[in-house]
Amino acid sequence: MKILDKGICSLSSFKVNGYREGKYGVTILYHENSTAVAVYTSNKVYAAPIDITRKHIANGNISAVIINSGNANCYTKDEGLERGLELARLTADTLNIPIEDVAVASTGVIGHQLPLGILVPVAKKSLSDLGSSREHATRAEEAILTTDTVKKEVGVESQLNDGTTFRIAGMCKGSGMIAPNMGTMLGFITTDLKVPQEKLQEALRISVKKSFNMVVVDGDESTNDTVMLLSSNEVEGVIDENFQEALDYVCISLAKQIAKDGEGATKFMEVECVGAQSIDDAISISKSIVSSSLVKTAVYGCDPNWGRIIDAMGYSGVDFDPDNVSISIGSDSQELVIVDKGCVKTFDEPELLEKASKLMANSEVLIRVDLHMGSESIKAYGCDLTYDYVKINAEYTT
Amino acid sequence: MKILDKGICSLSSFKVNGYREGKYGVTILYHENSTAVAVYTSNKVYAAPIDITRKHIANGNISAVIINSGNANCYTKDEGLERGLELARLTADTLNIPIEDVAVASTGVIGHQLPLGILVPVAKKSLSDLGSSREHATRAEEAILTTDTVKKEVGVESQLNDGTTFRIAGMCKGSGMIAPNMGTMLGFITTDLKVPQEKLQEALRISVKKSFNMVVVDGDESTNDTVMLLSSNEVEGVIDENFQEALDYVCISLAKQIAKDGEGATKFMEVECVGAQSIDDAISISKSIVSSSLVKTAVYGCDPNWGRIIDAMGYSGVDFDPDNVSISIGSDSQELVIVDKGCVKTFDEPELLEKASKLMANSEVLIRVDLHMGSESIKAYGCDLTYDYVKINAEYTT
Repeated sequence: MKILDKGICSLSSFKVNGYREGKYGVTILYHENSTAVAVYTSNKVYAAPIDITRKHIANGNISAVIINSGNANCYTKDEGLERGLELARLTADTLNIPIEDVAVASTGVIGHQLPLGILVPVAKKSLSDLGSSREHATRAEEAILTTDTVKKEVGVESQLNDGTTFRIAGMCKGSGMIAPNMGTMLGFITTDLKVPQEKLQEALRISVKKSFNMVVVDGDESTNDTVMLLSSNEVEGVIDENFQEALDYVCISLAKQIAKDGEGATKFMEVECVGAQSIDDAISISKSIVSSSLVKTAVYGCDPNWGRIIDAMGYSGVDFDPDNVSISIGSDSQELVIVDKGCVKTFDEPELLEKASKLMANSEVLIRVDLHMGSESIKAYGCDLTYDYVKINAEYTT
Repeated sequence: MKILDKGICSLSSFKVNGYREGKYGVTILYHENSTAVAVYTSNKVYAAPIDITRKHIANGNISAVIINSGNANCYTKDEGLERGLELARLTADTLNIPIEDVAVASTGVIGHQLPLGILVPVAKKSLSDLGSSREHATRAEEAILTTDTVKKEVGVESQLNDGTTFRIAGMCKGSGMIAPNMGTMLGFITTDLKVPQEKLQEALRISVKKSFNMVVVDGDESTNDTVMLLSSNEVEGVIDENFQEALDYVCISLAKQIAKDGEGATKFMEVECVGAQSIDDAISISKSIVSSSLVKTAVYGCDPNWGRIIDAMGYSGVDFDPDNVSISIGSDSQELVIVDKGCVKTFDEPELLEKASKLMANSEVLIRVDLHMGSESIKAYGCDLTYDYVKINAEYTT
């Protein structure tokens, strides 16, 4: 697998562009006659653009996506649907495609009507110069951001078992309101491999489970989450595990970029649960740890307070034997075993805590727990909880 | 119902005392031959004192409770059990009661052995001067605190329907690691009414559900939570709804004191869900809102960002109609309807947001949501999420 460096334009068949005006941005993603699939938030309260996109994507054909940042177009009733459709109509008319082939996505504040007076001119500007240069990619990736501090992108080239070369490119946004089961995040992934709609949907579902569904910033699940996968159908080939592997890589890369850019985060946290009896157990344990405010503040404070880790495991709802658990804390350079099959090593070696604290000063903190019960494992991704998370969220809307 | 002002000594038949040395405190609660019941954490990882207390309380007879702060005696294996029993034995020997009638409770850091060299002298000092004065109550209430900033106490006197007068007194600690289903909290409640053990247990279960189980500070559920109810059996009477009402009052009062003293909190938050089809729905909705980091930071920032409230309702798992919900925000002086049966009033009256922001500057912020689906309701208690929560928890152990 080769890593490409043009972000969403690593696959040049999709033309993109994006512009901002203040906190409002509009990004366009365009390829006539793509096959498209998506997964959405499971929040009972979901936004108008999700209604529109669900309907338009049903037959698997999407030619363009219009994405706006700054306003979620959620809890906005019929007026919200109309305004979302107005953005779709503008896109359809400009690109000369049916409105039913335009998907819509929004992210931002809930409960305010879309400010079309601002968004329409920005959308027109974006639509007037679509392309696939590095600059187009950057503009598209930046216009979808809200509290994010950096754009999030990835591109890979890989081969099927039969030697056929394909590409996958992706961009996303997400920083706060990031919970298990996606967050306030939008993700757009493109590929050139021709894959039947149902197989594409299944591949996306599998990758999302291991990536976007394993990211936690604050545990709040948003109303607008959407991850969309579009294929330009240029490359003929029979989907195999190499495609899944590349798609997993793309989704996990984007998910980690979201965790690293978590609101106020100073550190990236990776929590791996190994030795679980089932994958669901591994998911529950790793998410419980990565979500814990007390673990997150301990990571911020370089405090190897593993008691908070075992505590979070204990309330995860998973059945395990606390006296047969191992816990290690470290960074990418080194990993220290603090609890070894229930034996607390710091009882005899208190200096371990100081060593662990030093490792936790790195920008990436790794926590690994082993249940010693089976062979299932998974990683969850998150970040520390800092003063700046509070600052950002205490000052966001009004 | 009359409110009494001597805290845990509002019922003088229980003798108490407490002392601290640095971060370690020991409190004793004593009445020979009490009937006692308790509820505990549901965390899979629970502390040694819970093992001891569960065993000793099984026959319903407890004469004394020894409580230490500063160390949770959790994840400490057989050595932890032995050290916990040593505190129980000291109490039993000093008071000349069987060790099987002594309950033990601990709160503090997880994964360190009890420092008996410090705790035993403090325990001896506490045991040497038990009493029921205002000063004894204060010392007992203060010695169980950890990151708490104020003692938490309550006392009431009430009458059964037949005119019999009874009293209930209580004290508790709890400030962080406060989750649904209790938190890092210990609560001790005494009464003089003679109630059969099973009925006492049932009354406690009912009250805890409405009080300690409805408090959320950070969503981390501790390994040591215990609420104990002891009766001195002095007053003969048949338990009726007036006892339950008084016990509810005592438990809710203590729970609110915990929420108000939440780590780093500047504001108390009360979230009421009304109009629910079932009490479980009301509980899920109100807890989802009170637990949301985004709602908590909005309360800190006086930001009437009701979109975060409807978002938290949406991921609560409860089935409801978002278009038929009402949401109000206010303080104890005034309440503003922001969403009225799905109609967003701020669309026409944007000045409502500024008014709500002003009300949110009060030290108590009330949020009420009405599902308009039934007649069940409940209140959840919490606090804002502030810089100081992060500070306290980034600097706690090492």
